[in-house]
Amino acid sequence: MTQTIEQTTRNGVNHEQLYGTLDAIMAQPELGVFQFRATNVWVGGAHNRSTIQRFYGAGQEDTSREQPFVIDAGEPAILVGNDTGPNPAEALLHALAACLTTSLVYVAAARKVHLTEVESTLEGDMDVRGALGLSDEVRNGFSNIRATFRVKGDAPKEKLREVVERAQKRSAVFDMVTNGVPVAVEVETP
Amino acid sequence: MTQTIEQTTRNGVNHEQLYGTLDAIMAQPELGVFQFRATNVWVGGAHNRSTIQRFYGAGQEDTSREQPFVIDAGEPAILVGNDTGPNPAEALLHALAACLTTSLVYVAAARKVHLTEVESTLEGDMDVRGALGLSDEVRNGFSNIRATFRVKGDAPKEKLREVVERAQKRSAVFDMVTNGVPVAVEVETP
Repeated sequence: MTQTIEQTTRNGVNHEQLYGTLDAIMAQPELGVFQFRATNVWVGGAHNRSTIQRFYGAGQEDTSREQPFVIDAGEPAILVGNDTGPNPAEALLHALAACLTTSLVYVAAARKVHLTEVESTLEGDMDVRGALGLSDEVRNGFSNIRATFRVKGDAPKEKLREVVERAQKRSAVFDMVTNGVPVAVEVETP
Repeated sequence: MTQTIEQTTRNGVNHEQLYGTLDAIMAQPELGVFQFRATNVWVGGAHNRSTIQRFYGAGQEDTSREQPFVIDAGEPAILVGNDTGPNPAEALLHALAACLTTSLVYVAAARKVHLTEVESTLEGDMDVRGALGLSDEVRNGFSNIRATFRVKGDAPKEKLREVVERAQKRSAVFDMVTNGVPVAVEVETP
């Protein structure tokens, strides 16, 4: 039993299943079409809450998640909130860190690199005069983000660095945060 | 007591405190310099976890949060995970929804618009062949995002729409997701 697990998982990723998914999408490219979603409800002040459950992917609506994931947002007192959750800019740093990490773990699994530790710290610089409407000379979001990864594993350091580089080239959120995405906003006022 | 609360908060935002913050930063623009952070640790497979606590802002390191916020990430089974949390792309949708919502609530508070309900649904389209390394013809991230807001309040519909428009012009995450941010990645291999 232990032997079987050792053979089919690497870095906690079932790489046979991963190759199976890759082969299926290669053979039928339309299975690669996904749609992810989040529904957000305002609670009061800077407190709002996102619910994340269903998505479309691999040719069908996915109903495998029995419970939704819930993430609360807030602002600290200095930004006139009650600290009901990470603020949205901090949540974006989480999304970026998580995506780079998952990408590098999957890349390592595919390349037979056994990882033992992955940690990252992300910092984003923001002049809040933009978002607060006090200045048009600074942007609203982060002017820049720095991510520092600490990676250990049973591979030469050069190989570990290559895995992180490859992860950047394939990370969905890294692509979105560095290159931007068109966002269409519609408003209903029932 | 109730009267005092009614006078100083609107939409759950203490607008006198909001104006106080705005005045202080106007008078001393360097108080607008903030740095937000997230630290992420890989747990195993597609499971990783971000911890968010301290930040720098208003001229000092903020230590007001006694406990860190924790957000788990994961992937669903079809993407070779165990559903240990929203996936990173879903987390990005949360960040965007939360930021647009907070921005519109603050804008409404400043413009004396009483809101009664704000809900939003965000959808992002992704051909996962990009992130999975199967195609260079599709991008890794969402090709586009649609956000649908449903806003109710004690104001004409036109005014409510204006508030949402203004929120887009000031939202930090909307700026980052639509325009992109430079991200520098460093790797340590101790």
